[in-house]
Amino acid sequence: MAKHEKISEAVVRRLPIYLRYLSYLQQVNVTTVSSQQMGMNLDVNPAQIRKDLAAFGDFGKKGIGYDVNYLVENIRQILKLTEEVRVVLVGAGHLGHAISNYNAYMKDNMRIAAIFDSDPQKWGKEVAGLQIQPMEEMAETIQAKNIKLAIMTIPATAAQTVCDQLIQAGIKGILNFAPTTIRVPKDVRVHYADVTSNLQSLAYYLT
Amino acid sequence: MAKHEKISEAVVRRLPIYLRYLSYLQQVNVTTVSSQQMGMNLDVNPAQIRKDLAAFGDFGKKGIGYDVNYLVENIRQILKLTEEVRVVLVGAGHLGHAISNYNAYMKDNMRIAAIFDSDPQKWGKEVAGLQIQPMEEMAETIQAKNIKLAIMTIPATAAQTVCDQLIQAGIKGILNFAPTTIRVPKDVRVHYADVTSNLQSLAYYLT
Repeated sequence: MAKHEKISEAVVRRLPIYLRYLSYLQQVNVTTVSSQQMGMNLDVNPAQIRKDLAAFGDFGKKGIGYDVNYLVENIRQILKLTEEVRVVLVGAGHLGHAISNYNAYMKDNMRIAAIFDSDPQKWGKEVAGLQIQPMEEMAETIQAKNIKLAIMTIPATAAQTVCDQLIQAGIKGILNFAPTTIRVPKDVRVHYADVTSNLQSLAYYLT
Repeated sequence: MAKHEKISEAVVRRLPIYLRYLSYLQQVNVTTVSSQQMGMNLDVNPAQIRKDLAAFGDFGKKGIGYDVNYLVENIRQILKLTEEVRVVLVGAGHLGHAISNYNAYMKDNMRIAAIFDSDPQKWGKEVAGLQIQPMEEMAETIQAKNIKLAIMTIPATAAQTVCDQLIQAGIKGILNFAPTTIRVPKDVRVHYADVTSNLQSLAYYLT
């Protein structure tokens, strides 16, 4: 826990970006990469990359760079992707469907393991190999499948109620696409993924 | 520009979250809010909120808190939301459709003003009040409508090419849902919004 408090969220948000780029390098058989190369390709200051990675260990060799395979392995460990991470999706509307279908492309042991919706018309219908289940089965399924992360693609009005139910069932991290803030206890993490917030922070950089 | 370099991206990402909560307070006719209240509702340390806001000006009154209307107005100015911000969406697949339909709910002068797809079958079809246009019309439309932000909901393989075209046409900020890194010049900003990266950074916090 002490480690978590020292590492800023900004760093944790950059690690998946590094991982994706490094995985790409693996695919094209590049074995070594410098922070300069990474920085140029990822639009991140090379000094920032070195600092971010140094917070977790001594991965680079001065004048040579990073061993790609070694760094991939370590970032996957830092992000706890060495075991399968199961995710529940709540809300099988347009956005929920789009994200579920994207399930097949998820990498690094990340997998949507159950989908829920409050609409009885949707129950039993198949999305990306999973049957949409009623909300009443949510708590039991989350516990049975040992799911720790949730994606909420539901209307803002339902967000807090569903969020409370998810946390009660044992969810520790929520990716919230609902355009509303939700209250969670200290040991639960929320990332806001709604499009408006994302665009608003981009607008800041417009001159 | 000097201002931009001093303010960290983490702060800029929190401002829309503050704005959304403050707008909610306006709706329910709350006129004053303390950093404690904000912190409790947004799961952000109150000291962090005070620090974030103090970077832009002297908004709070000790022992009283923030004037909600005044703070909303100022955050909207900081985020450059006082004029309409037009957004182009590229890729009218499942995710693109879901986001376009969400257009109606966008607030604070943020609006999708054009939608493009490479599939001729989709051209002319209406999504959220806009006709899907061919990629060939993209540059001209972006310039004619003075669009500065883009949402990319396209496959990873097409991301760099489309990104280059967008930048050539004058786009300065890209919300990238494609699960791949893209290279952009220094004066263009990219936010990565793909679900896998978001979930991976959440996984970090699992104990």
